[in-house]
Amino acid sequence: MSPLAKTPEPPYYAVIFTSQRTEGDAGYAAMAQRMEDLAREQPGFLGIESVRGADGRGITVSYWENEEAIRDWKANEDHQGAQEGGKRRWYAGYSIRVARVERAYAMDKSHEARAD
Amino acid sequence: MSPLAKTPEPPYYAVIFTSQRTEGDAGYAAMAQRMEDLAREQPGFLGIESVRGADGRGITVSYWENEEAIRDWKANEDHQGAQEGGKRRWYAGYSIRVARVERAYAMDKSHEARAD
Repeated sequence: MSPLAKTPEPPYYAVIFTSQRTEGDAGYAAMAQRMEDLAREQPGFLGIESVRGADGRGITVSYWENEEAIRDWKANEDHQGAQEGGKRRWYAGYSIRVARVERAYAMDKSHEARAD
Repeated sequence: MSPLAKTPEPPYYAVIFTSQRTEGDAGYAAMAQRMEDLAREQPGFLGIESVRGADGRGITVSYWENEEAIRDWKANEDHQGAQEGGKRRWYAGYSIRVARVERAYAMDKSHEARAD
C-alpha cells in the first residue's frame, strides 16, 4: 500500500480508479504490484495512492504530468495485458476518471514540531 | 463504505481526500458517517466513494457539479467543525486535491448478461 504521494504544485493530472474485486486472488496481488512498479518507471509519473478495504472495494489514484503520459501508460503493452485480465477476472466492476488537478493542500503531523 | 458512484457525463469536479488515521476511534466513525450524510444533502453533490484499509490509510473521493458547490461544502459550519477535529485528533496526515474530471468510463459486470 503506497504512502501519501508527494506531488508538485498543480496543475497536473490524476487517474481515479475505483474498483470492486471479484472473490479470490487469481494472480491479482502479483499483477497489482507489478503494475505499480511499472507505472513508477513511466515518463511523466508523479505518484500513486492506493487503498483496498476488507470488502474488496478499492481506490487507486495515480498522478501524471500531463495527458500524454496517461495515454502512453494506458497503451503500455504489459499494462494492456493487465487491463484485459482486469475485465475478465479480477474486477466485478470499476470506474476510471481522468481529472486535471487544479489545487492541492496537505497536512503532515510527522513533519511538525509538537506544541506541547 | 459507499458503492461505486454513479456520476453524470463530465465535466464535473472531484475532491480527492487521502488520509492517514491516528490510532483509536475517538469519535471518528460517527463523525465520518455524519459528514457523508451531510455531504449528500448539499447542492451540487454528485456522489462519493470511500475506502479505508486495515493500516488506517484511506481515500475518499467526492464528486461535485462545480467549484462553487465545493467551496460551499468546505464552508459548511458542521463540516468546519469536523475539519478542525481532523487536524487535531483524527488524522496523522492528509492531502486534499481538487480536480476537474474531463473523461470517465466504467465497467459493471452486475449489469451485463453472462456469455456462458
